[in-house]
Amino acid sequence: MKSDYKVNEIKVGNLTIGGDRTTVIAGPCSVESEEQILRIAQSAVKMGADVLRGGIFKPRTNPHDFQGMGLEGLDHLLEAKRLTGLPIITELMDASYLDVFEKHVDIIQIGSRNMYNYSLLKAVGETKKPILLKRGFSATIKEWIFAAEHIAKGGNDQIIFCERGIRTFEDYTRNTLDLTAVPIIQKETGLPIIVDPSHGTGIRDMVSIMSKAAVAAGANGLLIEAHYDPDQSISDKLQTVSMETLEEIIKIVRRLDTL
Amino acid sequence: MKSDYKVNEIKVGNLTIGGDRTTVIAGPCSVESEEQILRIAQSAVKMGADVLRGGIFKPRTNPHDFQGMGLEGLDHLLEAKRLTGLPIITELMDASYLDVFEKHVDIIQIGSRNMYNYSLLKAVGETKKPILLKRGFSATIKEWIFAAEHIAKGGNDQIIFCERGIRTFEDYTRNTLDLTAVPIIQKETGLPIIVDPSHGTGIRDMVSIMSKAAVAAGANGLLIEAHYDPDQSISDKLQTVSMETLEEIIKIVRRLDTL
Amino acid sequence: MKSDYKVNEIKVGNLTIGGDRTTVIAGPCSVESEEQILRIAQSAVKMGADVLRGGIFKPRTNPHDFQGMGLEGLDHLLEAKRLTGLPIITELMDASYLDVFEKHVDIIQIGSRNMYNYSLLKAVGETKKPILLKRGFSATIKEWIFAAEHIAKGGNDQIIFCERGIRTFEDYTRNTLDLTAVPIIQKETGLPIIVDPSHGTGIRDMVSIMSKAAVAAGANGLLIEAHYDPDQSISDKLQTVSMETLEEIIKIVRRLDTL
Amino acid sequence: MKSDYKVNEIKVGNLTIGGDRTTVIAGPCSVESEEQILRIAQSAVKMGADVLRGGIFKPRTNPHDFQGMGLEGLDHLLEAKRLTGLPIITELMDASYLDVFEKHVDIIQIGSRNMYNYSLLKAVGETKKPILLKRGFSATIKEWIFAAEHIAKGGNDQIIFCERGIRTFEDYTRNTLDLTAVPIIQKETGLPIIVDPSHGTGIRDMVSIMSKAAVAAGANGLLIEAHYDPDQSISDKLQTVSMETLEEIIKIVRRLDTL
Repeated sequence: MKSDYKVNEIKVGNLTIGGDRTTVIAGPCSVESEEQILRIAQSAVKMGADVLRGGIFKPRTNPHDFQGMGLEGLDHLLEAKRLTGLPIITELMDASYLDVFEKHVDIIQIGSRNMYNYSLLKAVGETKKPILLKRGFSATIKEWIFAAEHIAKGGNDQIIFCERGIRTFEDYTRNTLDLTAVPIIQKETGLPIIVDPSHGTGIRDMVSIMSKAAVAAGANGLLIEAHYDPDQSISDKLQTVSMETLEEIIKIVRRLDTL
Repeated sequence: MKSDYKVNEIKVGNLTIGGDRTTVIAGPCSVESEEQILRIAQSAVKMGADVLRGGIFKPRTNPHDFQGMGLEGLDHLLEAKRLTGLPIITELMDASYLDVFEKHVDIIQIGSRNMYNYSLLKAVGETKKPILLKRGFSATIKEWIFAAEHIAKGGNDQIIFCERGIRTFEDYTRNTLDLTAVPIIQKETGLPIIVDPSHGTGIRDMVSIMSKAAVAAGANGLLIEAHYDPDQSISDKLQTVSMETLEEIIKIVRRLDTL
Repeated sequence: MKSDYKVNEIKVGNLTIGGDRTTVIAGPCSVESEEQILRIAQSAVKMGADVLRGGIFKPRTNPHDFQGMGLEGLDHLLEAKRLTGLPIITELMDASYLDVFEKHVDIIQIGSRNMYNYSLLKAVGETKKPILLKRGFSATIKEWIFAAEHIAKGGNDQIIFCERGIRTFEDYTRNTLDLTAVPIIQKETGLPIIVDPSHGTGIRDMVSIMSKAAVAAGANGLLIEAHYDPDQSISDKLQTVSMETLEEIIKIVRRLDTL
Repeated sequence: MKSDYKVNEIKVGNLTIGGDRTTVIAGPCSVESEEQILRIAQSAVKMGADVLRGGIFKPRTNPHDFQGMGLEGLDHLLEAKRLTGLPIITELMDASYLDVFEKHVDIIQIGSRNMYNYSLLKAVGETKKPILLKRGFSATIKEWIFAAEHIAKGGNDQIIFCERGIRTFEDYTRNTLDLTAVPIIQKETGLPIIVDPSHGTGIRDMVSIMSKAAVAAGANGLLIEAHYDPDQSISDKLQTVSMETLEEIIKIVRRLDTL
């Protein structure tokens, strides 16, 4: 569905983010094993997903929760990339890993909790890699744009915004997905914005519906947590969809792309 | 666009709310004069709007602002109905006017500020008229459903929910439109829900985009503030669209209806 | 403790609200029986409470919860007043009871849910009774002051503000008590403000501590839910303190009054 | 004023945080020059302040605003410490400066924006320095306690919480100071908590009032932005008090300490 606002295109290999086709980023919350990520990647590429996601460093509220596989997980992601050709995105939490990320990762994700971590923003601003900048869950749109300027100041304007819901009083959903951010970011920055309906709702059954709404609002892409056995996900299982649901979502999105 | 959740149909004369066709309610924030409302109504009916809105009692934060035309405004709305055949909706603020509303108004609106006014909810629960129940701007979905139960307890289950944005820290928009409420209300209550992108954004340029998103999320209808000269509106002018924009919105909505 | 801002004094019989002495309003959430309210009133007056509270019409989110004893409860409150000499405060939800309230109630409470109910505000603006205006739980201070202007416009400037906590993302407490409202209201309106630490926290153990903080912030009074057997309260039991705790709070408050 | 909840005492040189005496931390938002910080420090020590604050690395929303003096500012802070004997506190934004901080700074501040920066929390958890952990401005109390556990996991339990206001819809104040956090943190963690009424209100005239309220709520200390010429402060001038106001606050606090 055509957005009312044109944005700069960002190239990731052969992929164009911000063009006429909605970019679908899919994969598990966390890389859990080589087998898991390969299986998901092979399924995702068949369905027409564009980018493979998978966390290797996980910012967890509770310090006793699973913190991610670390660099071992990156090896698995790279194996999945070799196998499927899908570019990979994963979250950077600590600038000390930036060199490794710059060498191996196609899109570097800055997570919601680090949107105000100006040291980290500055560090990735000095790379040439596309940055996916998640909205802080309590950030105003203005502050989010300022965060992007912290990155751009270093010379890197390959910035993709990602709306993932904000914190409100509502407790039925995990966050309140703010789709108005889509046209506002496009209008104010001229940069692409993708929507994460998984974190944005926290509810598996709502992911497909909010994916449609996001694309209708003009979003340049979607970020969807998917797993072949969602209930077995180590993290975020309540919001992770099955590969079958992912397939349906991609079909609808491709149809909306032609409108 | 088909919603994932089926809802009870509510009949207003020949009109069905909650069926396959998105209900479009349009009109000015306030009835300002007979000429104004007739002109808007005639334009709206030509474009395919389904219901005419127009406030006659206006709940205004500032007691010194325009409070609406009162019953004189109702006469103008009725004249517009005679002329165009459009059913009318207007807000009831005070139970002492309920008899008049019951006789003349097709859908009685309970405004956001009165969602917790249980005396008023109880009063309209004893009528047979369809009630459009706006979400309190800081109400959880659970409280909103309870408000509907206050109405239903009196025997009136002709309830249409209306999401109109919630109050958050974000200040770019007037409110944060919570589209996830659409599938949740449909799933939890089996009743129709319409979306008000005018109050939900407070920004004229965002109304069309969020209308598309709302319909894609499965909303059963839209409530849109429209005026032939938006900048001359006495109230809510920043979020009121022109009749031309309304026409474009209705066209897109009808196209999405066929998907 | 002296506030930095002087306010208009409001007289309720022999009682002065807004003077040097902190007004303590205490009593159960709901009047449950004659025996209950008499017992609480007799205990409260001995401890030095100034006003007796007790709900007879209860605005309840869930329509199936106890809705209050209605006018029978008022009879019990009046009996408690005769016995103890304490003036009484109770909430008005419906303008149709205004005549009865005007005749019998010493301070008319407008509850948080009705702060935006402009029809009700207008109605009490035409009486000569002191009005306790609770802050809407999502009202900005500016809107709250506007609500008071809706009352004052009718000629009644005997308005006492009551801060009772606002709705935020925090869920440890029932609401977030906004004590900064105390000096702001005093400065901006010149009217007294009292604090309700019971609703403001929702936690019995926090009532005493936040009472001290409120008085230190210059609050002109406190509104405290107290019961001889808090766990047996029909409503709000988690935030209701025992009469023993009430006594301790009053002692500390009287000491702070002399600072 | 005695808190209802006893906490672990934390020693900083001769100073005890969490004991019977309220700790007063004061100083400018930013170190601006040697002259400025020396002049403020000399004034603060005379008034009875316990710790000198002053930012050298400033996390600024707008990347074009003043970012702090960096290590040059630390030299000035150290000179002020030599001159007055006051221990110093300043914010660490980037783990690469941790060695310098560990050697020279008495209390390491983790700012509100970095409360979710788990890499940084982990890093300071491996030092032996007391950490002042500001509440994320949209953090629940539960998440804040988890952040402290991220620090404690590394072996450092010298943690001082600092409430500095949370983000709500209210816009009269910069943040909404949540004083209920004081008893909750003390009860749940057994650790001291200090209150920052400067950020908590954003309004110079409210700092003194909310300081009293905080101490009455049992806060173990205060963090106050003060400057001899508040209107000339490079940052946060609207919430910075004069040295005269600081003196009055300290006097009142010392009086409340004896109650």
